[in-house]
Amino acid sequence: MKLLKELILKKGEVKNSSLLKVDSFLNHQIDPNLMFEIGKELKERFKDKEITKVLTIEASGIAIGIMAALTFNVPMVFAKKKKPSTMNDSFNTTVHSFTKNKDYNVTVSKEFLNENDKILIVDDFLAMGNAVLGLSDIVHMAGAEVVGVGIVIEKGFQDGGKILRDKGFNLESLAIIDSLENNKITFRD
Amino acid sequence: MKLLKELILKKGEVKNSSLLKVDSFLNHQIDPNLMFEIGKELKERFKDKEITKVLTIEASGIAIGIMAALTFNVPMVFAKKKKPSTMNDSFNTTVHSFTKNKDYNVTVSKEFLNENDKILIVDDFLAMGNAVLGLSDIVHMAGAEVVGVGIVIEKGFQDGGKILRDKGFNLESLAIIDSLENNKITFRD
Repeated sequence: MKLLKELILKKGEVKNSSLLKVDSFLNHQIDPNLMFEIGKELKERFKDKEITKVLTIEASGIAIGIMAALTFNVPMVFAKKKKPSTMNDSFNTTVHSFTKNKDYNVTVSKEFLNENDKILIVDDFLAMGNAVLGLSDIVHMAGAEVVGVGIVIEKGFQDGGKILRDKGFNLESLAIIDSLENNKITFRD
Repeated sequence: MKLLKELILKKGEVKNSSLLKVDSFLNHQIDPNLMFEIGKELKERFKDKEITKVLTIEASGIAIGIMAALTFNVPMVFAKKKKPSTMNDSFNTTVHSFTKNKDYNVTVSKEFLNENDKILIVDDFLAMGNAVLGLSDIVHMAGAEVVGVGIVIEKGFQDGGKILRDKGFNLESLAIIDSLENNKITFRD
């Protein structure tokens, strides 16, 4: 996705060989026009799929998820990291974040996923794939199906993309970064 | 806002005389078309204002904030409740949530607010007003100006609306609920 790659090159900051800071347009300050274009691009990439809901995880997946949901004209559900006091029965799993070196809970109310759902999972980054695998576990607990995974930035030098593709996920990453070595951003293709 | 009030009446669940559950369309499962209409309504309500950024707080403000940002064609910044390891210098304050009965930190990187900014603060709920006051503190730390506050649901039976209006905030709430007594939702007007 050309606009995205241009923004990554222009505004992304390589912090070290595995860490790219994109909080000026993707996950702290967010460019709404980029989000809208990402929504349209995800619609294009999954245009042949029947999708009933978009699923993501708080917080930085939400802006992407809501724009994808707008283009697909379906609800967006975001998994919470803490179960609110008002939530009824829920699906729960634990995800390990290598980036933050901690485990966190992922919770979705049973009210919002059911066995008829065809789910598009979206997220901002794909590194080791654990967030997607956790969300996928929750989808399966509901008896629903993951029909696609849409990622904004895949760290192609980490294992998540290979793991998900090997498991048969229909994964589309809008930008794949193969290296951040020597302070240089190298895209796949 | 008619569509919003209709959804609140149709899908809102009164849990007790101060708690309205709207997580089927506003803060867990989210209706993207409602968000888009909320963005347009906020643009209409603040059409005479110069706004350079939309500011909200994770997680349930993000979907609202990004749609408002889209209609104003400005960036959206969301305050984080934990400071990420990659964040440089930041503005910080503490907010007390009466709903959750706890204090939490609110953090915005100094990179994304400056003295030229004219800020629209948005959030899903207004109860005692503490989240808005905390965000406003952060805006003032940056030397910037709060030109408006856009709220989706104001709990008119709690003090936040009065406190903010008395302080001179230009506050627009898209639905004001004056009572949840006897399991009945009563709107102002």
